[in-house]
Amino acid sequence: MNMSRTEERSRERLVVVGGDAAGMSAASQARRLRGPDELEIVAFERGHFTSFSACGIPYWVGGDVPERDRLIARSPEEHRARDIDLRMRTEVVEIDVEGARVRARDLASGAESWTAYDKLVIATGARPIRPDLPGVDAPGVHGVQTLDDGQALLDTLTATEGRIDSAAQRRAVVVGAGYIGVEMAEALINRGYEVTVVNRGKEPMSTLDPDMGRLVHKAMEGLGITMVDDAEVTALRTGDDGRVRAVATEEAEYPADVVVLGIGVRPETDLAKAAGLPLGDHGGLLTDLSMRVRGHENIWAGGDCVEVLDLVSGRQRHIPLGTHANKHGQTIGANIGGGYATFPGVVGTAVSKVCDLEIARTGLREKDADRAGLQYVTVTIESTSRAGYYPGAALMTVKMLAERRTGRLLGVQIVGREGAGKRVDIAAVALTAGMTVEQMTALDLGYAPPFSPVWDPILVAARKAVAAVRSGA
Amino acid sequence: MNMSRTEERSRERLVVVGGDAAGMSAASQARRLRGPDELEIVAFERGHFTSFSACGIPYWVGGDVPERDRLIARSPEEHRARDIDLRMRTEVVEIDVEGARVRARDLASGAESWTAYDKLVIATGARPIRPDLPGVDAPGVHGVQTLDDGQALLDTLTATEGRIDSAAQRRAVVVGAGYIGVEMAEALINRGYEVTVVNRGKEPMSTLDPDMGRLVHKAMEGLGITMVDDAEVTALRTGDDGRVRAVATEEAEYPADVVVLGIGVRPETDLAKAAGLPLGDHGGLLTDLSMRVRGHENIWAGGDCVEVLDLVSGRQRHIPLGTHANKHGQTIGANIGGGYATFPGVVGTAVSKVCDLEIARTGLREKDADRAGLQYVTVTIESTSRAGYYPGAALMTVKMLAERRTGRLLGVQIVGREGAGKRVDIAAVALTAGMTVEQMTALDLGYAPPFSPVWDPILVAARKAVAAVRSGA
Repeated sequence: MNMSRTEERSRERLVVVGGDAAGMSAASQARRLRGPDELEIVAFERGHFTSFSACGIPYWVGGDVPERDRLIARSPEEHRARDIDLRMRTEVVEIDVEGARVRARDLASGAESWTAYDKLVIATGARPIRPDLPGVDAPGVHGVQTLDDGQALLDTLTATEGRIDSAAQRRAVVVGAGYIGVEMAEALINRGYEVTVVNRGKEPMSTLDPDMGRLVHKAMEGLGITMVDDAEVTALRTGDDGRVRAVATEEAEYPADVVVLGIGVRPETDLAKAAGLPLGDHGGLLTDLSMRVRGHENIWAGGDCVEVLDLVSGRQRHIPLGTHANKHGQTIGANIGGGYATFPGVVGTAVSKVCDLEIARTGLREKDADRAGLQYVTVTIESTSRAGYYPGAALMTVKMLAERRTGRLLGVQIVGREGAGKRVDIAAVALTAGMTVEQMTALDLGYAPPFSPVWDPILVAARKAVAAVRSGA
Repeated sequence: MNMSRTEERSRERLVVVGGDAAGMSAASQARRLRGPDELEIVAFERGHFTSFSACGIPYWVGGDVPERDRLIARSPEEHRARDIDLRMRTEVVEIDVEGARVRARDLASGAESWTAYDKLVIATGARPIRPDLPGVDAPGVHGVQTLDDGQALLDTLTATEGRIDSAAQRRAVVVGAGYIGVEMAEALINRGYEVTVVNRGKEPMSTLDPDMGRLVHKAMEGLGITMVDDAEVTALRTGDDGRVRAVATEEAEYPADVVVLGIGVRPETDLAKAAGLPLGDHGGLLTDLSMRVRGHENIWAGGDCVEVLDLVSGRQRHIPLGTHANKHGQTIGANIGGGYATFPGVVGTAVSKVCDLEIARTGLREKDADRAGLQYVTVTIESTSRAGYYPGAALMTVKMLAERRTGRLLGVQIVGREGAGKRVDIAAVALTAGMTVEQMTALDLGYAPPFSPVWDPILVAARKAVAAVRSGA
């Protein structure tokens, strides 16, 4: 008995709230560094799945990914095989910071119990913004945040395809024109729908400056998508069968057999807030660079529920993205496992596509730079993804922001076709390194006619930015 | 008269030797900054063309680029329209440094004359290494350095195709397995030839470490190319008609209807050497960072005839590549034009492809690091170009070198398929910025399933390199 009690005390317990990318990466990394005799790991997940790729849902719905399970990086069984006590369909409903324990509810039975922790990881993710509109809960209206959401949408598509004879009549409306919105537009095009995207902003992709968003607008129209900008949805109209039949704005109604909500997400931090943990202006948890919740020695947080440091503006941002969540998890797991790691911050890189249209951005938009108190020049250039004479050379537009006087790179936005999007990585590394556009003009980038013009489009933009900085007062 | 003489004296003369990328970029940039009333520009080119893309020749020969003129960025007429006195088919045969003049020969008439300069740009390029072998001048043996070379090769291919009935019998041997060799292998495959690549090195692509070269070997074999490594060519055998009919090595003979020499190039610096200008260990002109020839106030040099500083090893290298030549030209032109620019050096980035195989490298190979006195760890990882579940996700292998102790990135080599090659730019920028592999693991790179796994392959390699550096003594 004494032996056992001593063993109990020498063994720490890590509790993880949320079984997706950040939480399970943290658990796995901690396990890699500390065996089950040293560290007990208990993880709670309220859903049906662990470690799945939410970013992959549009491609599953669109048919590029044939089955749901391809999106699951690691199943509950695989986690359990690594000595993680994973409790599925179990929702943590309270964090008692003072008592160092969490209260969890088994969603099937409703039974609740407390679990003590030595170390806690909060990885509760984000929840989709669901507008408070008439008809928003009608059948045929779908979010695309979870695998269950994806399956429900696929079921609706199948039912709709059965219900309507002519393929030409199937209509889908996507509400929102950010990453999820434009990716879902592609998915529904691939499913043979006539697609309308209804968007509140002046242009789609508000993560770009409006002039670049305009290029996305035009290109999406070129793909046969009806783009409705500057439009506030006022209601989702339903038919006699109760199913959605149209999306109404102040000015018009857009018939719809299916509606996808892609308006964005907010940090899922109700639990953290109730526990008195520090939240930022965007509603996300605030951590230090080791991903430890500020002011709390034994609590870490990562993934879509936290705010991160924008290295270019010096401000906190909320950027829900799987690649960050994985890095957060690794960082947390390393620190809990007795190692040392930090997540220094982001530069705000993102890439997406709609059919063959590629869209990418990193760093600051004009309004971000304004907010950060930075003065800047902007240049926009057109170039091609390959040497102009090489087959498949496709036009791309690159916009670049550089700080006035210093010439420090502040941001890059790209709209183009094949080969355009991932070029943003060049700028992402240059931003991280604090390079000036003048320094960038000398970058030794890969050149061969099938891969790039002799001056890579990023270098063409940098050269023009140098001239703009020089001629600026 | 007096007026005129004063005007003459106030107008400087720039003489440019060599009318390709470096020379004509320098001339154009200088002209942009100083009008014809201030600066007279005389440029000599011994060939038939200006400003052409030698890198594009394999794609023209292979049929991807339909016509020769697509490879010409700017014609002699276009240069002349910008007030550049361009003298084609005129070879500079002597540089008189003390007298500040060059002697040029009109190749048609043989007439020679001296031209004085105030400023001189040497951009004489490189010349292909042509081995001193029996039969090397036989019809059917081709280099691929100039547009004339390309046309001659195309003429041979057309003649061969007419001469031989069955397509299956057409055979090509490429001597050399560097960039030109492998690109010509693709071109000849595209033309329907059975292709054999005979290569002196232990593996193809000696700009990679042998373990990565091995992957290229295997992949090229997978494309149906016969790869003969570790083989010294001893003779080119000719038939009764005097045409080449086989390539002989010490061990074997490889039948050939056409032979392409892709052995590499050397700086074309005979003129510079005769003039007493400083040459480096690789035979290239030595310049300072403004591309001014060392010790010569009024002479600049750029392009394939110069050596450049390798920023990673700190040593001089000879890297003939159009993208560098253009940067050199810009730098020289800016300085001659009264501006200020430097070419800080290279990190040794290169990318190439053979059909759908992509090959890229930047920084140091193992033997480069050894020579530079650096100790290092190496890691090699396999990952995919897209999320594993996304269609078209293709395997790629990334090798990474990091300095022992400091963890500074030293080099990256990539062999893969679509989407692999240009990822080398991430490493090229990180090398330029002097990043450690630990810093690289936090890079905010573009992520979406069609573009990358959640951990970009470069990040996967960086993470493994961090572990290797840590575990190293």
